Amino acid sequence: MEMKETKRTSPNGLSNFVDIHEVPEEEEEEEEDEHECKRNKPVKAADHKEKRMSNKPMKFHEVKRQNQNFGRQVSLETGFSVLNGDKKGRKTALPRSGNSFGGFGSADRREAETRKGDFNIFRTKSSLVKQNSLLPFRKESGIDSQYNDASCGLDDSINKSVPAGRYFAALTGPELDQVKDSEDILLPKDKKWPFLLRFPIGCFGICLGLSSQAILWRALASSPATRFLQIPPIINLSIWLLALSVLVAVSITYTLKCAFYLEAVKREYFHPVRVNFFFAPSIVCMFLAIGVPPCIAPGNLHPAVWCVFMAPIVFLDLKVYGQWLSGGKRRLCKVANPSSHLSVVGNFVGAILAAKVGWMEAGKFLWAIGFAHYLVVFVTLYQRLPTSEALPKELHPVYSMFIATPAAASIAWGAIYGEFDGLARTCFFIALFLYCSLIVRINFFRGFQFSVAWWSYTFPMTTASIATIKYAEQVPCVISKGLALSLSLMSSTMVSVLFVSTLLHAFWWQTLFPNDLAIAITKRRQGGKERKPIKKAYDIRRWTKQSPLSLVSGMRKQNSEEKDGDEVEK
Amino acid sequence: MEMKETKRTSPNGLSNFVDIHEVPEEEEEEEEDEHECKRNKPVKAADHKEKRMSNKPMKFHEVKRQNQNFGRQVSLETGFSVLNGDKKGRKTALPRSGNSFGGFGSADRREAETRKGDFNIFRTKSSLVKQNSLLPFRKESGIDSQYNDASCGLDDSINKSVPAGRYFAALTGPELDQVKDSEDILLPKDKKWPFLLRFPIGCFGICLGLSSQAILWRALASSPATRFLQIPPIINLSIWLLALSVLVAVSITYTLKCAFYLEAVKREYFHPVRVNFFFAPSIVCMFLAIGVPPCIAPGNLHPAVWCVFMAPIVFLDLKVYGQWLSGGKRRLCKVANPSSHLSVVGNFVGAILAAKVGWMEAGKFLWAIGFAHYLVVFVTLYQRLPTSEALPKELHPVYSMFIATPAAASIAWGAIYGEFDGLARTCFFIALFLYCSLIVRINFFRGFQFSVAWWSYTFPMTTASIATIKYAEQVPCVISKGLALSLSLMSSTMVSVLFVSTLLHAFWWQTLFPNDLAIAITKRRQGGKERKPIKKAYDIRRWTKQSPLSLVSGMRKQNSEEKDGDEVEK
Amino acid sequence: MEMKETKRTSPNGLSNFVDIHEVPEEEEEEEEDEHECKRNKPVKAADHKEKRMSNKPMKFHEVKRQNQNFGRQVSLETGFSVLNGDKKGRKTALPRSGNSFGGFGSADRREAETRKGDFNIFRTKSSLVKQNSLLPFRKESGIDSQYNDASCGLDDSINKSVPAGRYFAALTGPELDQVKDSEDILLPKDKKWPFLLRFPIGCFGICLGLSSQAILWRALASSPATRFLQIPPIINLSIWLLALSVLVAVSITYTLKCAFYLEAVKREYFHPVRVNFFFAPSIVCMFLAIGVPPCIAPGNLHPAVWCVFMAPIVFLDLKVYGQWLSGGKRRLCKVANPSSHLSVVGNFVGAILAAKVGWMEAGKFLWAIGFAHYLVVFVTLYQRLPTSEALPKELHPVYSMFIATPAAASIAWGAIYGEFDGLARTCFFIALFLYCSLIVRINFFRGFQFSVAWWSYTFPMTTASIATIKYAEQVPCVISKGLALSLSLMSSTMVSVLFVSTLLHAFWWQTLFPNDLAIAITKRRQGGKERKPIKKAYDIRRWTKQSPLSLVSGMRKQNSEEKDGDEVEK
Repeated sequence: MEMKETKRTSPNGLSNFVDIHEVPEEEEEEEEDEHECKRNKPVKAADHKEKRMSNKPMKFHEVKRQNQNFGRQVSLETGFSVLNGDKKGRKTALPRSGNSFGGFGSADRREAETRKGDFNIFRTKSSLVKQNSLLPFRKESGIDSQYNDASCGLDDSINKSVPAGRYFAALTGPELDQVKDSEDILLPKDKKWPFLLRFPIGCFGICLGLSSQAILWRALASSPATRFLQIPPIINLSIWLLALSVLVAVSITYTLKCAFYLEAVKREYFHPVRVNFFFAPSIVCMFLAIGVPPCIAPGNLHPAVWCVFMAPIVFLDLKVYGQWLSGGKRRLCKVANPSSHLSVVGNFVGAILAAKVGWMEAGKFLWAIGFAHYLVVFVTLYQRLPTSEALPKELHPVYSMFIATPAAASIAWGAIYGEFDGLARTCFFIALFLYCSLIVRINFFRGFQFSVAWWSYTFPMTTASIATIKYAEQVPCVISKGLALSLSLMSSTMVSVLFVSTLLHAFWWQTLFPNDLAIAITKRRQGGKERKPIKKAYDIRRWTKQSPLSLVSGMRKQNSEEKDGDEVEK
Repeated sequence: MEMKETKRTSPNGLSNFVDIHEVPEEEEEEEEDEHECKRNKPVKAADHKEKRMSNKPMKFHEVKRQNQNFGRQVSLETGFSVLNGDKKGRKTALPRSGNSFGGFGSADRREAETRKGDFNIFRTKSSLVKQNSLLPFRKESGIDSQYNDASCGLDDSINKSVPAGRYFAALTGPELDQVKDSEDILLPKDKKWPFLLRFPIGCFGICLGLSSQAILWRALASSPATRFLQIPPIINLSIWLLALSVLVAVSITYTLKCAFYLEAVKREYFHPVRVNFFFAPSIVCMFLAIGVPPCIAPGNLHPAVWCVFMAPIVFLDLKVYGQWLSGGKRRLCKVANPSSHLSVVGNFVGAILAAKVGWMEAGKFLWAIGFAHYLVVFVTLYQRLPTSEALPKELHPVYSMFIATPAAASIAWGAIYGEFDGLARTCFFIALFLYCSLIVRINFFRGFQFSVAWWSYTFPMTTASIATIKYAEQVPCVISKGLALSLSLMSSTMVSVLFVSTLLHAFWWQTLFPNDLAIAITKRRQGGKERKPIKKAYDIRRWTKQSPLSLVSGMRKQNSEEKDGDEVEK
Repeated sequence: MEMKETKRTSPNGLSNFVDIHEVPEEEEEEEEDEHECKRNKPVKAADHKEKRMSNKPMKFHEVKRQNQNFGRQVSLETGFSVLNGDKKGRKTALPRSGNSFGGFGSADRREAETRKGDFNIFRTKSSLVKQNSLLPFRKESGIDSQYNDASCGLDDSINKSVPAGRYFAALTGPELDQVKDSEDILLPKDKKWPFLLRFPIGCFGICLGLSSQAILWRALASSPATRFLQIPPIINLSIWLLALSVLVAVSITYTLKCAFYLEAVKREYFHPVRVNFFFAPSIVCMFLAIGVPPCIAPGNLHPAVWCVFMAPIVFLDLKVYGQWLSGGKRRLCKVANPSSHLSVVGNFVGAILAAKVGWMEAGKFLWAIGFAHYLVVFVTLYQRLPTSEALPKELHPVYSMFIATPAAASIAWGAIYGEFDGLARTCFFIALFLYCSLIVRINFFRGFQFSVAWWSYTFPMTTASIATIKYAEQVPCVISKGLALSLSLMSSTMVSVLFVSTLLHAFWWQTLFPNDLAIAITKRRQGGKERKPIKKAYDIRRWTKQSPLSLVSGMRKQNSEEKDGDEVEK
């Protein structure tokens, strides 16, 4: 939604700087298969070919420099800093590394710079256009068409949507955030990138954790089950304000990233794990609306609030679930991972908010959508199909996501149907069992490096606590109240610990935002002088052994080359 | 059921013309695996061997004519037309192509004729028997035993149930109705086949679309939610009569096909997509019973109606679901495709009818069966397992099937449990979301060639409309009524457009029934002079790359031959 | 639980006899993957390496005897019988075969004995320790350290948890109880093993069948739906007492097995099918508590009963479901088989008992757990994924398990929520349909050899009967009562037949307990002098053809060796 807007507002300053790919088309194209593409868009297909040709110079390792001019053009573009229009962005951004302004050295050096040191490749194209519009002299020069070719090629090779398989092939770890050793990336690993480039979508997880805490403390203060605790409502208010301010800060920062590094945002959107985090901003807003302190909004909320916050969720639902169902590369059995719960839980949260604004039927609609897809995701994740690559072998914080959805479903059903009946209890108890199941494996949760994504693993605990409070309202006994209290305590402790850790990492150690390598993978694998065999994305062959005969190594090489090509087009 | 009947009534005119395979046995045999088969039926196994030997001459390309007599026998059998008993069938059938009576030319020519021009291979065996019984002189001739061998061989190679994998290997398209370029078929592609052979089971889809419209207009006329529209009941009556007459026409035609081309019908039954359409006739009958105009049947229907219409559904349920569960070749993860919804929706329609005749418990039974299998089908289709071959990459009208089942489940639950409660609403909203999900991808539905199968994609829209009317009864507000109206309008428009298209295709362009290539695939792949590596039916190896080493091509050839054999017996 | 206890009480007699692997660690280790293992336990990893080296002499066929001393040590240990402490065990055990006390012959002979004739390898380690503690002179000998090495190697190669894939690779049949022809086993096939080693966990199935009958006859005697039958309560009492006595006998025997052959028990625990039978003892206890005759326990049961019987189930739930979800080797898509229902049904039985003791909320908790996992298991089994190896092609008694879970779920829901509502009926009807589905395929159930595991296939029938009686209480009509009666009759007949068969097999033919080959598979495949291509455990390559080229057999050999290694570490 926002991405589109950003795009549309870009002035097409240079008419012959072809802005080839619009986001929505890009994405649709992926859902269609090739022949569809060929049939309906012959012109576009031709375009593709053209671009592929112009694309070559970007593959520095494979291609002998056949046309040194290209390198020069790219370097030219690169060398010039953005002159106006993004001053505000610069303020927050870290100082650029010097070598991106490479001067006019040898072509080799420039090329290496372009690839390694140039953060411009992730810039929003509109800002590139603006730069270009400031260089009118270039229009007259004879290298103009070549320049266009080169920039198209650059667009194509770097900014075109990275195939889903590529992420699985190049990245590793349960959050697909570590680059495999064998992979090369587009940006320099050894120096710090601009702040905005290092600011991942996962930062909304902080807001998730805090805003759900606001709901929890509101429930603790107001629920009949925990009234005996005499929690003052001021805690709810203060946490809510904190969550709100963090949300504002994170939103502004990420909006800046959208404005200046749209290509990086796109890459996050195409990342099989990260795409689920695009649901987070809306969920946070709804959390804040649900947990709004009574002193701020005394009566019922206006349904418009629900409409505004729900629109992105429904839009993303249609997008993401459609990809699962119709999908080629992003079919569910490939992309399913515990983060997929995040794309389901939004519906239940929306249902809770719908009950709060009084639109019960809308809530039931959302609950139904959420439930249908929760069922599919739950079964798929439990089966752990061999085609699903993103699932880590070992347990990991990401598994706490399993708790969030049934807990939210339980609260939502209770809210929209007015009673905490069999179905709501079933959902609640499923969440509780999964919680137990993770707690007894608590030692698996140690030994992982802290990252900002951890935050999103706290809100499931909070959601479970809130569901337990709702349950304790229905079944008021010592056990249920004790459970509610201890779970609330655990989740609050966890959030406090993470909050302190985050502050320490952010301001003391300044290691909160390491280079976000996951977005900088190359679109195709770039091997040595000859393209090496790429592990095919969702390849079942992982379970098959390749013939390890040394004397037919030629076969293997050839073989793997085919695989390589295969992956690219599949 | 019908197939059985037809078969049983066949007179065994010639005692030594062995009618080896009865339909039910055929099918059971598939469910068992080989060793079971060997242990329990040693006689039969021996039979098989015999047949396999006599089978050889049918593989024209692979086998050097070792026994030209066989060709002659086949041709003899072929050449004689059916002399009596099927006069009625002839009336509807198109004139036979001349070259099936080939005279007594060279063996080569005869063979080619047999294969290419002979529609008799799909004839009901009983009519062949009748032919033979009219040729008593042949009994005395010395070639009699050879004749039997040959006809057995012919039976075996053509009429024996085609393995499920073969359909996936030879056919393509979301409805598995297009033959791959590399495949050869048994009948001539370049001329028009007899009408009955070109009349697919999918024609019952027309009745599905029309009869569901009758229900819709009955609901529009009688529902309190749409009473303000003042729809006259005459519309329901006229559509109902139209649907009834179309059903009668289609049923008679298809019964004739069963009578004269039972082998073709069998092949449709073994087709992984088409088998689901065998549920259609019963569903149509139930639709007509549900949508019967009040002036025709004023009171409640008699339960006998339900029993009669439901029997085939239950029988097919046991058959088809048993294959999914116990299945070797037809296990669910292989055959699942959107049409599978058709084999599930019958249960829900049966439940609605059960509620109408007053047998609530029977309805609950059917609802439970339907729901259990809907769950499995829904999850399986959403996951899009790599083993499932039938799922097209792109979206297709066939995806509208997704809407039908939850909508019908919702109506049925409301009808049998007397209230449109949480579960019914959940099902309804799931249907609604899937509807939205398809509508936003409306451009995927363009560009497909019209075929009679399109009809079956209209009844989901109608079912959704009826469910919306039920919902609007429960939640009478502007939005729900508006939704009910617009969905009804859409479905009626769609049906009208299709009706006109069908009439135009049928009578103006006369292209409604093209050659039904899908039923004429060879049982085994028949390649050129060298057998190419065959893509194995449900082979996961699609994802694995074959070793492309040219110097070990011999290995590949051997390999593929094995695969071929493998496929046939698996 | 019990396993742990047994272990903990073992006196560490010999300090330098390193008891390397404790059961829980062993198991956890499997859940972690290798790098985790390496990181956290460097010492242990080193240990492994050491052991692997000392392990070599155990692979008799591959390795040229490089160190004959090892063989001697093993033989020494083996030769000595247990001198004290297990006298009681000896009473029930069959006399040991003579050749396990091999004296001090040639090293070769001793090695063969060790492997083939030595039942000690499955002994509880504590008893081995005891043996050793009686041989103090060995401490002084110089071969002591070597001895330790050897015994560690022995522990490692035989007693370390066999990888899940190994079971699938080496065993066949729907119960994974037959050893493939190509496999070698650790114990002699041609002579009778000690009774305890031949006593499988499946024997608790007898108790399952009998105790569920007790419930059935209690229900028949007391239900309003069948009161007209005037069943005397004495039948319930007598069956209940019989079931109780059988349970006691089986429990004592299996406890002895745990005490003396803990390693064999462990192997049963790691067996993908048998692990589900570890739920059986608790389920039997709960069955007995549910079916307790009114004359024995007139009032409500005390909740403590539920706690005691439920604890092992919850413990195993956490264990087994955790493996499914987090699993590497035991992920659900690999180990799912109809017996998995047994690990789900325990929750529903627990819910019924919870309702009986008055703890409704606990029952709802269990029902939720059970339902969530039933859903996953049901869908997974219905899909019949190609990764799931345990599923037999043909139908088999094991499929009756499908009936048990929905029937129990139905009864449980009715009991804990107090009404036999829509959900309970849905579950009940699903069970009924699956029952029908199996009955129409009744001929598939013939021709299988009787085994004690058959018993566990009777309790689903009984459960279905009880559910039908509950249903008949709600819907009292001729059909429901007739159904209840006929199903009860069928299940009782089945149990009677099996009871007689079991008695005949046990005492007349004495063939009830054949050698339990499934527990004696080697940990790694031990081929002849040339390694044949090994079918990889959960290998999808089963569907792919191996290159059958004889001239590149070297490639194959190498290939299979790699696969072998792969399987072990994966």
